[in-house]
Amino acid sequence: MQSGMLSPSRLGAVAQRAKSVFVPLLSLLLVCSSIAAFAQDALPSWNDTASKQQIVTFVKKVTTQGSADFVPPEQRIAVFDNDGTLWAEQPIYFQFFFVIDQLKAQAPQHPEWKTTEPFKSALAGDFKGVAASGEKGIAQLLAATHAGMTTDEFSRNVNQWVSTARHPKTQRVFTEMVYQPMLELLHYLRDNGFKTYIVSGGGQDFMRAWAQATYGIPPEQVIGSQGDLKFEMRDGKPVLVKQAKVALVDDGPGKPVGIERFLGVKPIFAFGNSDGDQQMLEWTMSGDGARFAGLVHHTDAAREWAYDRQSSIGKLDKALDEATAKGWTVVDMKKDWKQIFPPQK
Amino acid sequence: MQSGMLSPSRLGAVAQRAKSVFVPLLSLLLVCSSIAAFAQDALPSWNDTASKQQIVTFVKKVTTQGSADFVPPEQRIAVFDNDGTLWAEQPIYFQFFFVIDQLKAQAPQHPEWKTTEPFKSALAGDFKGVAASGEKGIAQLLAATHAGMTTDEFSRNVNQWVSTARHPKTQRVFTEMVYQPMLELLHYLRDNGFKTYIVSGGGQDFMRAWAQATYGIPPEQVIGSQGDLKFEMRDGKPVLVKQAKVALVDDGPGKPVGIERFLGVKPIFAFGNSDGDQQMLEWTMSGDGARFAGLVHHTDAAREWAYDRQSSIGKLDKALDEATAKGWTVVDMKKDWKQIFPPQK
Repeated sequence: MQSGMLSPSRLGAVAQRAKSVFVPLLSLLLVCSSIAAFAQDALPSWNDTASKQQIVTFVKKVTTQGSADFVPPEQRIAVFDNDGTLWAEQPIYFQFFFVIDQLKAQAPQHPEWKTTEPFKSALAGDFKGVAASGEKGIAQLLAATHAGMTTDEFSRNVNQWVSTARHPKTQRVFTEMVYQPMLELLHYLRDNGFKTYIVSGGGQDFMRAWAQATYGIPPEQVIGSQGDLKFEMRDGKPVLVKQAKVALVDDGPGKPVGIERFLGVKPIFAFGNSDGDQQMLEWTMSGDGARFAGLVHHTDAAREWAYDRQSSIGKLDKALDEATAKGWTVVDMKKDWKQIFPPQK
Repeated sequence: MQSGMLSPSRLGAVAQRAKSVFVPLLSLLLVCSSIAAFAQDALPSWNDTASKQQIVTFVKKVTTQGSADFVPPEQRIAVFDNDGTLWAEQPIYFQFFFVIDQLKAQAPQHPEWKTTEPFKSALAGDFKGVAASGEKGIAQLLAATHAGMTTDEFSRNVNQWVSTARHPKTQRVFTEMVYQPMLELLHYLRDNGFKTYIVSGGGQDFMRAWAQATYGIPPEQVIGSQGDLKFEMRDGKPVLVKQAKVALVDDGPGKPVGIERFLGVKPIFAFGNSDGDQQMLEWTMSGDGARFAGLVHHTDAAREWAYDRQSSIGKLDKALDEATAKGWTVVDMKKDWKQIFPPQK
């Protein structure tokens, strides 16, 4: 045999080694090309209207190396309101259904609730009656259902509820009343190196119980309204007991406060749907470089609900004017979204 | 040529392709083995005593796939106290030197401070005089130096101070009074898939200004004591103004509260140095599976300071008893650390 040639057996060994390397590499290439193919239609539930184009254009420019608008991955922070932005919020914030169900479960131990407001109205599902009790009444309901138990006990309550309770109109479990186009947007941003956060007026502990499974957002990226906690020893084991005293109302001007407190950096991408998100969007847009602000406008009475300036839940008035004046993206649910909710499981 | 054999030219092509694959693979292997070599001495400033062995044993068992103690990366949360654990804290918490320097800069506008406590004592560097003014006095000093400005203005103040101010004993800038062995520990944990957090009684905004450059810990992983923030529009631009009202005292039982509020999950690794860290360590150790609790015991009067049960700063008494009783790791600074501070730049 000439030198420089290999025997069939050695050749076989080389081929085997080459194969053992090439096959995984080839699989990797296939995976990469499917990622690329996926990226071309990462938002399949969005119609090809201006909203989708504005999102894709923004993401491309901040992720393109060498672009004047390039933003390094560690600064790609995206914040999302929850109620009305990631999941529906009609006829009333879903957390309120949780409150009612918790009250019903506790009612046998509280016969006085039958005749005492705001409990009487809440147990009857009379939202107007509850609203009439004002902030004080709502605080009483929250104290009865969101305080006095440990954080672990509360999470168990929420998990049990969220896996069984159903929306009165659609009969879906509430975690299936999330918006399919927004789920795709969350994935699309994360695939492009963004870190996605929830910044919501809803209860932080309430959302954390199901945000990972529903949105792929881990607990430390869920910022919400929160009560005080008290460290206690119970049977020699430390617990944290939820207190009725409010520590942060993460709504309106409280949203930039929550963002600063938790993150210490300004997001570059924010999505909301109501006047309660206006300051979060202003805060996001006030930094240097490329920035994105979006609003979900509920325009689809047939497939979801249609409401804005006059609604008591998710009122969208001043923020809509500001979005129009400043050229922020306003998603028209009816025109921009092919599909509202994901397929039922 | 026999079938099954390749011509020299095709063989050359195969060899070339194999080389093009093997060379990068080989480089990768070399890199991996240098990582492995590095991992064997990832803690070069630690003597080979029990403390180092306990740390390395813990990290190996929670990162070894198939081990009964394996912990997936997303649950590898490590929390560190700052004062006395990551950097020194004598003769007084370093943030207090910042307070004094800020007061001195403002003193010309406040002639009344010359005769009013606690300002008079603070300006004279009389810590005992300040301590005599109690919690109320300290709150007044914090209000004068940590409130009334925007978050951006405050960060600029801290950055300017931290790059110029020097420790009265060592004449080092304060960010060079961090513990070299603890810097190595932070890196070692991150190299092993841990996320490292600061959980300190010190000011959150104060630490965030320099934690990234000093410890490689980004702002959102710095949890500390914090005041309220107020959202305001100034010249049409949103700002957050620091308020004197305290929102969280992240010390003692406040540490598990801060951890839960920010993370929503229990850490598996915690390091502190004083009774103010006791509840954080208890909280960390109360979960299931493998867990690590460590204390830095200041035993080195020659190279640093020696203090514990009787000290007014960084008192280590009850936590030391609990650590001994429960077999937590207690680092003896004098015996366990080859070097205290990093080389001066």
